[in-house]
Amino acid sequence: MIQSRVHVADLREHVGRTVSVCGWVNTLRLQRKMQFVIVRDSTGMVQVTHTRDDGPLEAQLEALTLESAVRITGRVVDAAQVKLDGLEIVPEQVEVLNPAATPLPIDEHTGLEQRLDWRFLDVRRRPAAQLLFAVQTTLEQGMREYAYAQGATEMHTPKLMGTASESGAEVFKLGYFDRSAYLAQSPQFYKQMAISAGIEKVFEIGPVFRAEPSFTSRHATEFTGVDVELAWIDGVEDVMAFEEQMLAHAITKVADVHGEAIREHFGVEAAVPTTPFPRITMAQAHEVLREGGWDPEGVKVDLDPEGERSISAHIKEATGHEFVFITHYPAVIRPFYHMRPADDPSVTLSFDLLWKGLEVTTGAQREHRYDVLLKQAAEKGMSTKPLQDYLNAFRYGCPPHGGLGMGLGRVLMVMLGLDSIREATFLFRGPNRLTP
Amino acid sequence: MIQSRVHVADLREHVGRTVSVCGWVNTLRLQRKMQFVIVRDSTGMVQVTHTRDDGPLEAQLEALTLESAVRITGRVVDAAQVKLDGLEIVPEQVEVLNPAATPLPIDEHTGLEQRLDWRFLDVRRRPAAQLLFAVQTTLEQGMREYAYAQGATEMHTPKLMGTASESGAEVFKLGYFDRSAYLAQSPQFYKQMAISAGIEKVFEIGPVFRAEPSFTSRHATEFTGVDVELAWIDGVEDVMAFEEQMLAHAITKVADVHGEAIREHFGVEAAVPTTPFPRITMAQAHEVLREGGWDPEGVKVDLDPEGERSISAHIKEATGHEFVFITHYPAVIRPFYHMRPADDPSVTLSFDLLWKGLEVTTGAQREHRYDVLLKQAAEKGMSTKPLQDYLNAFRYGCPPHGGLGMGLGRVLMVMLGLDSIREATFLFRGPNRLTP
Repeated sequence: MIQSRVHVADLREHVGRTVSVCGWVNTLRLQRKMQFVIVRDSTGMVQVTHTRDDGPLEAQLEALTLESAVRITGRVVDAAQVKLDGLEIVPEQVEVLNPAATPLPIDEHTGLEQRLDWRFLDVRRRPAAQLLFAVQTTLEQGMREYAYAQGATEMHTPKLMGTASESGAEVFKLGYFDRSAYLAQSPQFYKQMAISAGIEKVFEIGPVFRAEPSFTSRHATEFTGVDVELAWIDGVEDVMAFEEQMLAHAITKVADVHGEAIREHFGVEAAVPTTPFPRITMAQAHEVLREGGWDPEGVKVDLDPEGERSISAHIKEATGHEFVFITHYPAVIRPFYHMRPADDPSVTLSFDLLWKGLEVTTGAQREHRYDVLLKQAAEKGMSTKPLQDYLNAFRYGCPPHGGLGMGLGRVLMVMLGLDSIREATFLFRGPNRLTP
Repeated sequence: MIQSRVHVADLREHVGRTVSVCGWVNTLRLQRKMQFVIVRDSTGMVQVTHTRDDGPLEAQLEALTLESAVRITGRVVDAAQVKLDGLEIVPEQVEVLNPAATPLPIDEHTGLEQRLDWRFLDVRRRPAAQLLFAVQTTLEQGMREYAYAQGATEMHTPKLMGTASESGAEVFKLGYFDRSAYLAQSPQFYKQMAISAGIEKVFEIGPVFRAEPSFTSRHATEFTGVDVELAWIDGVEDVMAFEEQMLAHAITKVADVHGEAIREHFGVEAAVPTTPFPRITMAQAHEVLREGGWDPEGVKVDLDPEGERSISAHIKEATGHEFVFITHYPAVIRPFYHMRPADDPSVTLSFDLLWKGLEVTTGAQREHRYDVLLKQAAEKGMSTKPLQDYLNAFRYGCPPHGGLGMGLGRVLMVMLGLDSIREATFLFRGPNRLTP
């Protein structure tokens, strides 16, 4: 790293010494007698103060542009009048490592879409955006800590598939030498193959792809999925228990490391949830919602976003909890591979996890019996031929198992109180956005 | 998890008690008076011993098939004559959780390609394959530990791109609503954007895609890349130092956790490398190789696989080291975004890392100056229009930076002495393989 570089946050320890600070020109105040440059690095901002003297330094500072990458070498001095930590740097040397063109294409009034066009500047200039990726890192670290402690194995399953998984409707298709391939909508089939391969607990964080023309604040065509699959389970309850423990552990870690910064930059608390999370069956949820006037025609089978928000509000009021597992989804709205209880094949041993009204996870016990899988696929009107590689994994002793898929961006979005998944992703991908 | 389940490795603590073991039928020996079933779980194998008694248990055991998923409940007893830890289980209850069809499609004589067709059975039945994924998990854990400790931020960059990166020749193209998209060959451009976004150290482990019709033992069309990018570097040496420290840390962790198992199952030592790794310039490497008779026509600019093996052998002999950085690759065989030293624009500030003769990493200091990037792209005959989103990231003060991309499968392959990347990947993808 650049020799003798000091991060802005550490300058206090260097008062009286000459150091180098590397960062960006955040603000320029070039007055008649004085030149003030605020330099920002990833840890904070510092004022560089220079008295005009008609020398080369004055000319250099005068020529600076906003967001240029600079190295300022100078003496750190106490300056009680300076708001930024009561410090300033009296410069001795100014190097422009990379000049920024003027004017900048975005400023603090720029709308979301144009900010996304210039996402690198948007993230660089907003401490809250910087914090988001630090929080993401810690959140994943916490999830992995929990998963590793449970003996999970980190797998990397293929994103390229030979056949379209599930329905094929929301799958991207690509040219693959002299044939076609498809992008995995989720690691679902492959993590089940890993279970059949004898891996007891499978963990994967990676991209998933959805060819869905959705323009909502919570959908993306590519997002980061957190996937877990557990073998030898007694039932879907084991999967829910794993998830709530993993989340509680990871959120605790985030609160410990970033709680104060989150409060400052996002104005919210990173509140650690108690476990177990509340659970409610879909039938109960419908009952509660209909009492509140939801779906007056009585035709809805699934929860719509309004229903999800209402049931979360209800649970919050009844229990104080921000999370709720909705269980026993009707079989008609769940994929063929979700297991159904022996005493009621109209529902599935599946769940969604809502956090403050937003679905952040879908999970289930999987059907591991080959004959039942064939039957359930047929019931859904699916052709088994493109599924044969998948189905083969169940013909030779695949153990009982279940798992979950969580959207990392959605978790961050709810945790930090963001309006859109676009703000919770470094480079968002949607039907209308493939750049930058 | 299944109630009162005990892993095979822990049975010794349960002698005299009745427990349940969950696993697969590894071996059946059904004799005239006795029935022996060897059950395998992810931790080991145990013998289940039953004396024929014309009862229902006898019939159940008789009906078992190899690789069926079973739960055996019985008493754990000392049995000095039994090779498997001097223990056996006297069964009281046998449950077939999922029966395996017969015969199995592969056995211990099956060749590689057919084993890959039934990869879940291949991995399930071979302890060495199980170990590989445990080693992968620990290796990644070690890399992340090092990266986190250096303050790295874990990023997830898009795999969907609006334009073909770099040459476009080896890029998969897909339909994206009413237009086309391309799969990222590496996170290169996006991790540089993260650097320009003010992230000081970027870390990503994720899939990369290469539309290369290569059929060698070391190429795949999709593989897991470990990517690092570091801002504010003084030079490419900072990148090499990061990599050698990260590898040394991660390999130490693997050796600590799995050293003995690796010796047993792969017959190799997980030898922790000393740092720094040896470095040799490409010009020096050519000199050494030509002295040894390599490339008698004197026409080769790059190292071919034979050259890579020879230079590694040479370094091993001279220094005892298994790793070597080859530096200063000629500019003609490096991408336009590699920085060139001011005093010799015919070479680049780049490197490859070889381990035992196999290239496991390419890295470089990147050119961060917009005007120089434009010039270097033009020299390579590239059109800058499709690159504009990328180039924009350098117009507004992108700091000096450099990074590396490592192939996770190749590292595992060399570490464990495997013949092919196919064995170091859960589900291999190549020009002829998109299944299972």
